[in-house]
Amino acid sequence: MQAEIIAVGTEILLGQIDNTNASYVARGLAALGINVFHQQVVGDNPVRLEAALREAEERADLVVVMGGLGPTKDDLTKQVVAKHLQRELVLDEVAMQNITTHYQNSGRSIGNNDRLQALYIAGAQVLANHNGMAVGDFIHQANWTDYLVLPGPPRELKLMFDTEVKPALQATYQSTAKLTSRVLRFFGIGEAALAERLETLIDQQKNPTLATYAKDGEVTLRITASTNDSNEAQRLLDQVEKQVQALVGDFFYGYGDDNSLVKVVVEKLIKHKLTITAAESLTAGLFQSTLGTVGGVSAVFPGGFVTYAASAKQALIGVPADVIKEHGVVSSETATWMAKKAQQSLHTDIAVSFTGAAGPDSLEGNPAGTVWIGLAYRGTSVQTKLCHFSDDRQMNRWRAVLTGLNMVLRAIEADETLA
Amino acid sequence: MQAEIIAVGTEILLGQIDNTNASYVARGLAALGINVFHQQVVGDNPVRLEAALREAEERADLVVVMGGLGPTKDDLTKQVVAKHLQRELVLDEVAMQNITTHYQNSGRSIGNNDRLQALYIAGAQVLANHNGMAVGDFIHQANWTDYLVLPGPPRELKLMFDTEVKPALQATYQSTAKLTSRVLRFFGIGEAALAERLETLIDQQKNPTLATYAKDGEVTLRITASTNDSNEAQRLLDQVEKQVQALVGDFFYGYGDDNSLVKVVVEKLIKHKLTITAAESLTAGLFQSTLGTVGGVSAVFPGGFVTYAASAKQALIGVPADVIKEHGVVSSETATWMAKKAQQSLHTDIAVSFTGAAGPDSLEGNPAGTVWIGLAYRGTSVQTKLCHFSDDRQMNRWRAVLTGLNMVLRAIEADETLA
Repeated sequence: MQAEIIAVGTEILLGQIDNTNASYVARGLAALGINVFHQQVVGDNPVRLEAALREAEERADLVVVMGGLGPTKDDLTKQVVAKHLQRELVLDEVAMQNITTHYQNSGRSIGNNDRLQALYIAGAQVLANHNGMAVGDFIHQANWTDYLVLPGPPRELKLMFDTEVKPALQATYQSTAKLTSRVLRFFGIGEAALAERLETLIDQQKNPTLATYAKDGEVTLRITASTNDSNEAQRLLDQVEKQVQALVGDFFYGYGDDNSLVKVVVEKLIKHKLTITAAESLTAGLFQSTLGTVGGVSAVFPGGFVTYAASAKQALIGVPADVIKEHGVVSSETATWMAKKAQQSLHTDIAVSFTGAAGPDSLEGNPAGTVWIGLAYRGTSVQTKLCHFSDDRQMNRWRAVLTGLNMVLRAIEADETLA
Repeated sequence: MQAEIIAVGTEILLGQIDNTNASYVARGLAALGINVFHQQVVGDNPVRLEAALREAEERADLVVVMGGLGPTKDDLTKQVVAKHLQRELVLDEVAMQNITTHYQNSGRSIGNNDRLQALYIAGAQVLANHNGMAVGDFIHQANWTDYLVLPGPPRELKLMFDTEVKPALQATYQSTAKLTSRVLRFFGIGEAALAERLETLIDQQKNPTLATYAKDGEVTLRITASTNDSNEAQRLLDQVEKQVQALVGDFFYGYGDDNSLVKVVVEKLIKHKLTITAAESLTAGLFQSTLGTVGGVSAVFPGGFVTYAASAKQALIGVPADVIKEHGVVSSETATWMAKKAQQSLHTDIAVSFTGAAGPDSLEGNPAGTVWIGLAYRGTSVQTKLCHFSDDRQMNRWRAVLTGLNMVLRAIEADETLA
């Protein structure tokens, strides 16, 4: 089964927006065992779009066309695909009702173009749009090819893909074995090092298969089993996961595509009712802001400090001037005091501190990327960690934040083991 | 002049990374007056890559191939293009010397594959790689087409495009008029509203042309003049900018592609020696962390507070409990106290406060997206602003940060006017 993705839109073609839809759909198809062999981007131009459709049909069993379903005069995708397949466009009553209701609620009248969004290609399975008005189409076997026609706005596309496209594809291609995936997430090991440790496993496994993926400092491993028996699928996944955990379990922190180190940490904090604060120098609030991305964190995170200048380290949290004078700002001692004082100020169970040189310049003779991270955990003495990051300013700050989160996670886990 | 971009790489094809190189190159070419009419993505597969080259040649005057220049066995782009054009690969001595030095410095020995990165296609202009080892190629008139072969890692591609590709294209296509651009940046107006206000200008102008672009809550307008006389270019740009400023000047904040609201604000702060702090609730450190992205901000930013819980608003900066009790956390009064107290604590010229409901849940009956922002500016009384954002949690927090930065900017500008 070979798929091809065609994104339609002059704003993608001219680089005004990144084609994130293509990567989302490609990953989603891969998880269903359908590999994308070619991608195209064309502008809002009927002649070029139809040429792209013809080329794609030659190469692929499934052609995914995204974008150009809206109500403006530029939106012609549905019309072009219908013409190419020599089919009519038909009104979907449910979608039309949604559009009517939407306009009634906003007190405006429906334009003629708005009705276009309720049209589908004759013979297609209509794909509902829960984040917008334009419906999508799944057409089985036209010109010996299957077609998906999806909306361009990422919010609409992603939800339609997850709720409508996946079930439609699974139902249609059910003769092929069902794929079941499990995603393992790691921190503290690079993708290349992870792949190297798992090399034999990756090379030898045919079912399940293993694939690594790195993004924003975290690495994930997707284990995919192909079988129609769901118990058998879980058994296969368990078996491989056990081997994986034996090799790289030290770096494992959680499961799932829609997960992250900060989510796992915040869940643990909430579960154990552990409160947290931070005193941040080079990260300047990025650690706390990252905690703030997780809804519900307010139960365990009262707030904290950004102590960017040495003076603020003294004024806000009372790091003694002679500690900074004797050991420097970038030191284990300063990190220790920052964590301890922050913990005391807000009476939290945990406090994390960050002090170092984000870059591009060095600080006190410490090269850019040198960072001390302190962790005050309940009554135990503060532990500190020295890091040497070698990326640019923003990525160095981000790696420091992730390392701090990981220190918190490991401390809680150690505590869980004792309990 | 029509261009086509081909990205080579299985990791893009399968959606493991976004194809940000394509949008970068497309924007860069557009700024040179070269429009991209088609994009493709193919995997690390010589047969499919050569088929893509043949198709692109049919459509385009300039074919840009990106990715697959590295030292691994998957990296075959240069070899495939050379074979397709029936040319040899030739060693570039300068690049080879760089590779040799790199390995000597790291104490490792050069592998055979590493030498591949110093090869260029016979007859090509060699494009130096200042962020990596693989050189690029610019081939003029092969198969009636021009070819660019560029590295895949974004750091390498972007620098090579800016420092090597742009001058090469400008020199080669000098018969066409030279394009000179000026980028104007706006905040506080959406792209659609900006385009609407400028509609007549955009529709009528042929030289210079105007193009809008929206990203991450900011909007830019690129004005591009086409002429070989650089004085004439500046005159044309000045003339159109004057008309633009008359229509939307209230929202203008700065110039340039590589600029942002936070950069402009930090530059102003440093220029006027104005110090700044913040007390952040829903943004949880994002405002301060954003200040921290700009190098040199330490001169004006000592640090600040994250007062996520009501208790921290009292404990850390001394917002009176009865203010919160009477007016609520999400109120002009609380925002005022937060800004004033933060300013007093760190003796800064400016303090910004944020309190509100990031979402998805409401807070104290205020719907998600309701945010009060306070600004304490030198000795003047604190001004507050009520915002209603309607995006998701992360975007609401980001829009709050941008709005706070804009309030700071406008206050400094008003001060500059008085002086």
